[in-house]
Amino acid sequence: MIRKLALIGTGLIGGSLSLALKKAKSVEEVWGYSRNEKNLQKGVELGVLDQYSLELKEVVKEADMVVLAVPVGVMESYFQQLAPIITESCVLTDVGSAKSEIMHFAKTYLPVAYTGFVPGHPIAGTENSGIESGLSDLFQDRKVILTPNENTNHAAIDVVSSMWQTCGANIELMSAEHHDQVFAATSHLPHVLAFSLVNKLSAMEDSIEIFKYAAGGFRDFTRIASSDPLMWKDICIQNKQSILQVLGQYMTELSSMSAKIEASDEEQLLEYFMRAKNRRDELIGRC
Amino acid sequence: MIRKLALIGTGLIGGSLSLALKKAKSVEEVWGYSRNEKNLQKGVELGVLDQYSLELKEVVKEADMVVLAVPVGVMESYFQQLAPIITESCVLTDVGSAKSEIMHFAKTYLPVAYTGFVPGHPIAGTENSGIESGLSDLFQDRKVILTPNENTNHAAIDVVSSMWQTCGANIELMSAEHHDQVFAATSHLPHVLAFSLVNKLSAMEDSIEIFKYAAGGFRDFTRIASSDPLMWKDICIQNKQSILQVLGQYMTELSSMSAKIEASDEEQLLEYFMRAKNRRDELIGRC
Repeated sequence: MIRKLALIGTGLIGGSLSLALKKAKSVEEVWGYSRNEKNLQKGVELGVLDQYSLELKEVVKEADMVVLAVPVGVMESYFQQLAPIITESCVLTDVGSAKSEIMHFAKTYLPVAYTGFVPGHPIAGTENSGIESGLSDLFQDRKVILTPNENTNHAAIDVVSSMWQTCGANIELMSAEHHDQVFAATSHLPHVLAFSLVNKLSAMEDSIEIFKYAAGGFRDFTRIASSDPLMWKDICIQNKQSILQVLGQYMTELSSMSAKIEASDEEQLLEYFMRAKNRRDELIGRC
Repeated sequence: MIRKLALIGTGLIGGSLSLALKKAKSVEEVWGYSRNEKNLQKGVELGVLDQYSLELKEVVKEADMVVLAVPVGVMESYFQQLAPIITESCVLTDVGSAKSEIMHFAKTYLPVAYTGFVPGHPIAGTENSGIESGLSDLFQDRKVILTPNENTNHAAIDVVSSMWQTCGANIELMSAEHHDQVFAATSHLPHVLAFSLVNKLSAMEDSIEIFKYAAGGFRDFTRIASSDPLMWKDICIQNKQSILQVLGQYMTELSSMSAKIEASDEEQLLEYFMRAKNRRDELIGRC
């Protein structure tokens, strides 16, 4: 049971976490912090928050769990602000989608003796944002990845794991570096590709006509280009090295693909497309 | 009213066309041709075909409408076979998704005096294939693009337009070259990108793990990589020039994207992602 949960940032993820914990009766009170008081008031009206303050210190005071659920681009400033007020008995976690930079901020700003920070990444979300979009079952059967390092204390890892399991999630542990490589490939690269495709096609002379004929495949393919631009800007900055690496590899792949088409190499093209189809059907299923 | 429809190729598109015309009572009899007799028998059992023959000549004889609904990769051979048997009074159309090469085959093989060929491309399909997947409403409210040239006779264009309108489709006319450029951008390029992404990720050391963490966005983004490899091999061959052109432009776009990330240019990245999101939301809607 969490006694006082301090929710820093009151968006979809933070709001859903609070709703899930309240539904499971696994939290006594949830305090919210945001720079936007209207959001906090809305949180109270919706029953997501029990209390709030515009003073970070008030919200964190005597909390046994602090969850940093702000955009990754502003995380650094919160580690700076938390450093002097976090106490040894308080567990801290975050929900950022790039982990190495966040580990770096924690190391830079948090007291050396503090071992209660457990970096996390819930693999969940909807295309909606904001506290009013919160869903108590958002994490049901979803993965939450934790990326502690050798200094993180085990009790804190257990507490954060329990919190997410209470929300219905499954916990996986891996290193921050490995996390960032895996997500650069499966999530960050596809987003960069989709944004680039929409902009490339928009810049073409007959772009209105091009979008007019866009069929279902194109809609699916570019759906992620409707994601939050600020979040993706932040992720590109924070996971720069892994994204650049996999983007470079992908461009090499496209060059070789282009050469196959240029050569009208029917056999190789067919083998290539079959391999991709089989692999996707086998690993993801036909969905 | 079509008296005798000769369906060459009995897959999803041909089968759905027959069902839609029969439902609208706009065809007297539908004959099927395929090299696979089992498919033809199945077509008769399902009520998609009234008659069939393994002799192309029998099927085409006295037909007033011939629809070439075979994979684009084998179209050339059918133009060769149709050349000596098609009559002036018979209208010929096809359903291929790349049009310039098909126009070229028609010009190469069909008699100079024959003006009844109206190239067509119904923008419809499901992830299923085969005559048993045929749906009488597959073309309802979908676009069918016709790409006649200056020699095509107007009566034939009207007959083919009526046939598709009877199935609920909306007709659009454009040149074959323009069609191929537009579809290279909206359909062929995204498919090539999705196939390449799946293969690139599959070749990575930790590919099983990578697919394990693939979230909804990745599923959507790569859904089209589960498409028919044979069809996409054919399209890459038949629309080679337009695909290479737009693929080259896209690779240039990715290089510039990579440079923005490399430079950690937050302002430009944010502007870039916002532009893509706004453009997509505006032109396609949030779906």
